[in-house]
Amino acid sequence: MTRGETQTAAAIGTAGKDAVPPRKIPHQASGTALVHTPVAVADIPRRLFGSFVEHMGRGVYGGIYEPDHPTADEYGFRHDVMELVNELGVTCVRYPGGNFVSNYNWEDGTGPKELRPVRRDLAWHSTETNEVGIDDFYHWSRQTGTEIMLAVNLGTRGLHACLEELEYVNAPAGTALADRRVRNGIPEAMDVSMWCLGNEMDGPWQVGHMSAEAYATAVDQVAHAMKLAESGLQLVACGSSSAHMPSFGHWERTVLDKAYDNLDFISCHAYYYDRGAASFQDFLLSSEDMAHFIDTVAGICATTKAEKHSDHEVALSFDEWGVWYSDVWNQQEEEWKAQAKAGLHHEEWPKAPRLLEDLYTVADAVVEGSLMISLLKHCDHVRSASRAQLVNVIAPIMTEAMGPAWKQSVFHPFAAAAHHARGNAYAPSIDGPMLSTPQYDAVPAIDAVITWDDERHEGLALVVNRDEHGTHDVRIDCSSLPRIDASTMRIDATQMLHEDDPYRRNTAEDSNAVVPHACDVRMNEDASFTLTMPEISWAAIRFHSA
Amino acid sequence: MTRGETQTAAAIGTAGKDAVPPRKIPHQASGTALVHTPVAVADIPRRLFGSFVEHMGRGVYGGIYEPDHPTADEYGFRHDVMELVNELGVTCVRYPGGNFVSNYNWEDGTGPKELRPVRRDLAWHSTETNEVGIDDFYHWSRQTGTEIMLAVNLGTRGLHACLEELEYVNAPAGTALADRRVRNGIPEAMDVSMWCLGNEMDGPWQVGHMSAEAYATAVDQVAHAMKLAESGLQLVACGSSSAHMPSFGHWERTVLDKAYDNLDFISCHAYYYDRGAASFQDFLLSSEDMAHFIDTVAGICATTKAEKHSDHEVALSFDEWGVWYSDVWNQQEEEWKAQAKAGLHHEEWPKAPRLLEDLYTVADAVVEGSLMISLLKHCDHVRSASRAQLVNVIAPIMTEAMGPAWKQSVFHPFAAAAHHARGNAYAPSIDGPMLSTPQYDAVPAIDAVITWDDERHEGLALVVNRDEHGTHDVRIDCSSLPRIDASTMRIDATQMLHEDDPYRRNTAEDSNAVVPHACDVRMNEDASFTLTMPEISWAAIRFHSA
Amino acid sequence: MTRGETQTAAAIGTAGKDAVPPRKIPHQASGTALVHTPVAVADIPRRLFGSFVEHMGRGVYGGIYEPDHPTADEYGFRHDVMELVNELGVTCVRYPGGNFVSNYNWEDGTGPKELRPVRRDLAWHSTETNEVGIDDFYHWSRQTGTEIMLAVNLGTRGLHACLEELEYVNAPAGTALADRRVRNGIPEAMDVSMWCLGNEMDGPWQVGHMSAEAYATAVDQVAHAMKLAESGLQLVACGSSSAHMPSFGHWERTVLDKAYDNLDFISCHAYYYDRGAASFQDFLLSSEDMAHFIDTVAGICATTKAEKHSDHEVALSFDEWGVWYSDVWNQQEEEWKAQAKAGLHHEEWPKAPRLLEDLYTVADAVVEGSLMISLLKHCDHVRSASRAQLVNVIAPIMTEAMGPAWKQSVFHPFAAAAHHARGNAYAPSIDGPMLSTPQYDAVPAIDAVITWDDERHEGLALVVNRDEHGTHDVRIDCSSLPRIDASTMRIDATQMLHEDDPYRRNTAEDSNAVVPHACDVRMNEDASFTLTMPEISWAAIRFHSA
Repeated sequence: MTRGETQTAAAIGTAGKDAVPPRKIPHQASGTALVHTPVAVADIPRRLFGSFVEHMGRGVYGGIYEPDHPTADEYGFRHDVMELVNELGVTCVRYPGGNFVSNYNWEDGTGPKELRPVRRDLAWHSTETNEVGIDDFYHWSRQTGTEIMLAVNLGTRGLHACLEELEYVNAPAGTALADRRVRNGIPEAMDVSMWCLGNEMDGPWQVGHMSAEAYATAVDQVAHAMKLAESGLQLVACGSSSAHMPSFGHWERTVLDKAYDNLDFISCHAYYYDRGAASFQDFLLSSEDMAHFIDTVAGICATTKAEKHSDHEVALSFDEWGVWYSDVWNQQEEEWKAQAKAGLHHEEWPKAPRLLEDLYTVADAVVEGSLMISLLKHCDHVRSASRAQLVNVIAPIMTEAMGPAWKQSVFHPFAAAAHHARGNAYAPSIDGPMLSTPQYDAVPAIDAVITWDDERHEGLALVVNRDEHGTHDVRIDCSSLPRIDASTMRIDATQMLHEDDPYRRNTAEDSNAVVPHACDVRMNEDASFTLTMPEISWAAIRFHSA
Repeated sequence: MTRGETQTAAAIGTAGKDAVPPRKIPHQASGTALVHTPVAVADIPRRLFGSFVEHMGRGVYGGIYEPDHPTADEYGFRHDVMELVNELGVTCVRYPGGNFVSNYNWEDGTGPKELRPVRRDLAWHSTETNEVGIDDFYHWSRQTGTEIMLAVNLGTRGLHACLEELEYVNAPAGTALADRRVRNGIPEAMDVSMWCLGNEMDGPWQVGHMSAEAYATAVDQVAHAMKLAESGLQLVACGSSSAHMPSFGHWERTVLDKAYDNLDFISCHAYYYDRGAASFQDFLLSSEDMAHFIDTVAGICATTKAEKHSDHEVALSFDEWGVWYSDVWNQQEEEWKAQAKAGLHHEEWPKAPRLLEDLYTVADAVVEGSLMISLLKHCDHVRSASRAQLVNVIAPIMTEAMGPAWKQSVFHPFAAAAHHARGNAYAPSIDGPMLSTPQYDAVPAIDAVITWDDERHEGLALVVNRDEHGTHDVRIDCSSLPRIDASTMRIDATQMLHEDDPYRRNTAEDSNAVVPHACDVRMNEDASFTLTMPEISWAAIRFHSA
Repeated sequence: MTRGETQTAAAIGTAGKDAVPPRKIPHQASGTALVHTPVAVADIPRRLFGSFVEHMGRGVYGGIYEPDHPTADEYGFRHDVMELVNELGVTCVRYPGGNFVSNYNWEDGTGPKELRPVRRDLAWHSTETNEVGIDDFYHWSRQTGTEIMLAVNLGTRGLHACLEELEYVNAPAGTALADRRVRNGIPEAMDVSMWCLGNEMDGPWQVGHMSAEAYATAVDQVAHAMKLAESGLQLVACGSSSAHMPSFGHWERTVLDKAYDNLDFISCHAYYYDRGAASFQDFLLSSEDMAHFIDTVAGICATTKAEKHSDHEVALSFDEWGVWYSDVWNQQEEEWKAQAKAGLHHEEWPKAPRLLEDLYTVADAVVEGSLMISLLKHCDHVRSASRAQLVNVIAPIMTEAMGPAWKQSVFHPFAAAAHHARGNAYAPSIDGPMLSTPQYDAVPAIDAVITWDDERHEGLALVVNRDEHGTHDVRIDCSSLPRIDASTMRIDATQMLHEDDPYRRNTAEDSNAVVPHACDVRMNEDASFTLTMPEISWAAIRFHSA
């Protein structure tokens, strides 16, 4: 291929499965955005591509676990789902909640299944059979090659139960709880490094929710004692459950001030959806909100570090993020409450009901692609992230009972980043068309991040056109990347998400309605390349240099 | 009967048992009180006629429960006591404490009796055999047709145990704890609606007593989580353990401010006795103190509601009230403390000792009748009340081991209200003789409430003469009651409590020393009637209109 | 013996074992100190001679307990160690921690040994086999005739577990937990009077450490409830874990203010060592720091008592004191932390490792003798004290596995006081040479206390020369002691610790390098006596009068 040529590289995808030819994009760009002078942010932590499996809805039961399914393994886990998890590129999985964990006894999910108790899950008004627990999820994590990020219950339990769980999970044989694990069939220590100390403990919806001061006290005790047991642990304190909580900021400052030295992460959670934004255009710009959120919390961390004259770093774990039509759930809850006024009971405590099974549009996928760009551009502060969730529940992977597993639109931008964003992240300058919305004064229509693996000489550009209406040409200048040789730069593969109908989405019946296409990229001589981004589109371009 | 005649109606009583002819009252009235213009307060909640069974003294063991007694049923409960409970008209029974509950494990009172542990009850320095627990009390409540108002332990336990107890008691079969209940012989959910969240947690005598802030935090967590489990529950937070606690007011404000939306009741407790008042006349006026107490707490509820712009109501549960010679117990405790200085132990941990077996005078009964009038006049705010207690312990019903059960003087005013105060309560204006005392400037000697069942066209007037010395004529004008027809108004039955010796009381040997008598009531033509109330007397007049 | 003669009495020691003849001290005194006009402080509580056995290092396992040792009794306790404990004169032993207790389940150390769980001890990074627990230690305490001072876990547990432990330990048979003790082979109540409510709960190193306010709340609940169970208990609240904690003072005030009436003691902890002081001379003057510490805390107790208009007394329990080379442990912890950064685990969870096995010099012994003088001079406030610890761990008694037990230098001054300081303590005035140091302006080189048993007419003078360089003559005037008869006063025995090399110490190989010698004392006619104290020396003189 010669300079100046328009290249249609293979589409990005594992084993080329998604090699769909490029859509024809009528060139009617309303402007050109120049993506240039990328500045190194940080090395990209593998944990940035984490996900989340909560005991809720069909996330576990009928999701990753369905012992009667034709593809189920000896532990009852679906192999077809595992294959999709692998294809998604997930590195690290938060487990077992979420709100669920705040009334959970970890022991319930250990030992012989026939002895495990059936419980009521108060968070999601469901019956929890405990057929799956840490014993089982450990097997799943080994099968999928994922790291476990384990959350402890600080809602109905506290320090004592945390220490026992830690010993059960991580202690070498020879103590009472470790020996119980051995008897349960797991002779080796599970070696879980990353522990979430409770979940969204500021949320009034959370079982055992508490004030900033009370949580700071609890987390200080728990973090200190867990590190006495294993000083190499990496501990995640709950931040505010969203940047829009009344106590946001005060919460983070209080928790960090009290327990700084024994913490390694503070969590951020953010969900976005169309109806939750001031306008559709604002929804498309959700990554601006995320970026501002990250900056704020990173600033609190830095301030605390300075005040304490500490050389210890606390990073951000963005351990719940994604698109979620949360109004549907909120309405469901209101209906339940209204019903209950009449009588005493929630009559229904269903097992693995269909909860939060949002079907994602291509616009949602473009937004998630944009959010991933934001995470990468802030990976100096965000050292771990978990897209919420993994299967069936606000998920990239959907399943049918005894049937197939399939991919939602949001599967694709995550997979592209998880597999190919390696090395260091670079935040480029972007000059180009600007957008003004009810929420934002003037923000660029185009956003992008470049990743570059210095050793393999491989790079990835992730680009999004967040403009609801305008098509834009984009020129991406990679010439200032370290040790890049313009003369040998080649495009390896491309991928674009865009549909004329931004609300188009996959369903169980038609699970290929939204798939990425390859896209036309024009190589320039100066280690830059150009492509046309239609409105509401996301693209990934893999390149290398000798 | 013609207008103007003096009528001697049948005495009020169940099955006419108490149909004792009227005492001759020499007419020497020092004044006439006009009871008129009754204003509707609210419908009368059946829970206003609640009582209280605490594990203490001979309240349970040797009280409601005595398996060797000739009248004992298959569960060991005395039938003769149940009959008196029925005659008393109790609707709802608070259980199992009181101070007792703050060091109680609910599990101890479940399952096979031979496996139940013997414990030390720290609150009353007694040995608790746990022969009776929620399993058994549920049977008793069904036998007596009473509702259970169940108190949880927030002294030595917390959220986790509360949720487990709730599941055991109320969850349908299918979960671990509900299935345990089924195995214990109770297949159906007990469907307990009303739960007390701890007991008198502000009292320094309480096991696990706490600050207002700490209790508010605890009750907010517990109430929220219990309502997640069953949003139809009605939850009672502890108010101050008396209006004379140093933190009274602050406590209520703090608790309501923190947990308002998940609470349905806040509790009031008040006990009165002769030696505890500034004078005997002041003791007779105890209902003034109760009325002021209610007004204060109702005001705090209203203020909180307004501040929160809420449409949710929190009512008052006056769940401990009555006459109690509390100085006897306090002196007992001081003696124990003094003994203990010498050695290490309380040597005595008796089983079901005779504790708080106060013998009530006719004056005490008049005061309790007066307190009930006060509760009815405030039933817009007080939506539940429990006279403390039911059997043997500061109780209307007394028992002898292997012997009879008998009624104290205070049995009668409660029974009259419980059976006949139906429909709506009306607070009349009262013009008449006034009393001045060390505690009160000028309060009416006569107090009264009128209840009127609009549908059955039946009414009840409860009247009390709180004057230590003076006899007063009382004219009660019912003409403004809704849909009353003066021409058809008739007196159905009457009852008066009065003895020349106000300290006269029943004993095991002479359990009819104080009984109500019928009284002479003069009907007037205008739907009013007149009677003479001697000093320290209480009367009930049932009437109807076609 | 005639007045004016220099007397060489028998050396103090049990059974005369330490009757080593006096060292020759060249008389080159740089001054004379007059010790006179002793003022009665208080009766000497036997608990002042307490010690401390913590589950750590080889304190228990391989210390008091070594079932394979030739001298082991039926419970596995070494008889040779018990003999030394007896010789040491220990009266009361704090158990089982220390930091250890804050993650300890008391149940683990009860019942059949084969069923006891192996645990990780987080405080000392060791494996705890639980072969020894309260069941066993109770036997040891009876064998040694010592009182148990039992610490409860307020780190990972709270009120509920405390009440259960109290019932197990002290309740007469007939309740569930007392009956469990009976089944475990101990039919009688253990009758433990003195309970420590947690350990050093202000220390950031402590599992479950908390704020002053949180601890005050916890201790108020626990103390109140424990006294409901047994009002004769004597309860010790944690004071600051050292006088140098940032919250010192505030902590004591907060705890006492909240829980005053149910507390009997507040604890003080202080350790001293050469490298920890501003200079060696300052180390020798450590008792000045201790005296100041005691005065401060006693002042807070007195202030609180006055503010509360209480007639209840809260005394000081100086339940950790002694010489400890604490920098060695701190460095060990830092090393562990650094190792752990590399990996997840503490690889090592050794059983009964050699921890804190400080070898004490003669200077250390002189300092401990001096600290004991300080405790005796303040025994009006300090009504209990525990030298930390007893065996192997910063201990007067050392053992070799399967080998002998031997005495460190610090054994001797403790034993002299424990056996012979009886009756009342008297604080004398001291006129003599003064020392100025980096830490202190002008303090006497000589310190002394006199004890006098009014009934037995026996006395003890404990004297220390804290001067690093100067030898001083000391004249001790006992004439003002009550009922002393100068004409019949006689010296019974003497003991001096001094070596030309102040760093000389005993080792397993040479365990008699430092032993006390008798010393030359010159009797005067006026019930005074004179002796020469070389630099860094301690002496005890027993005397009587007819």
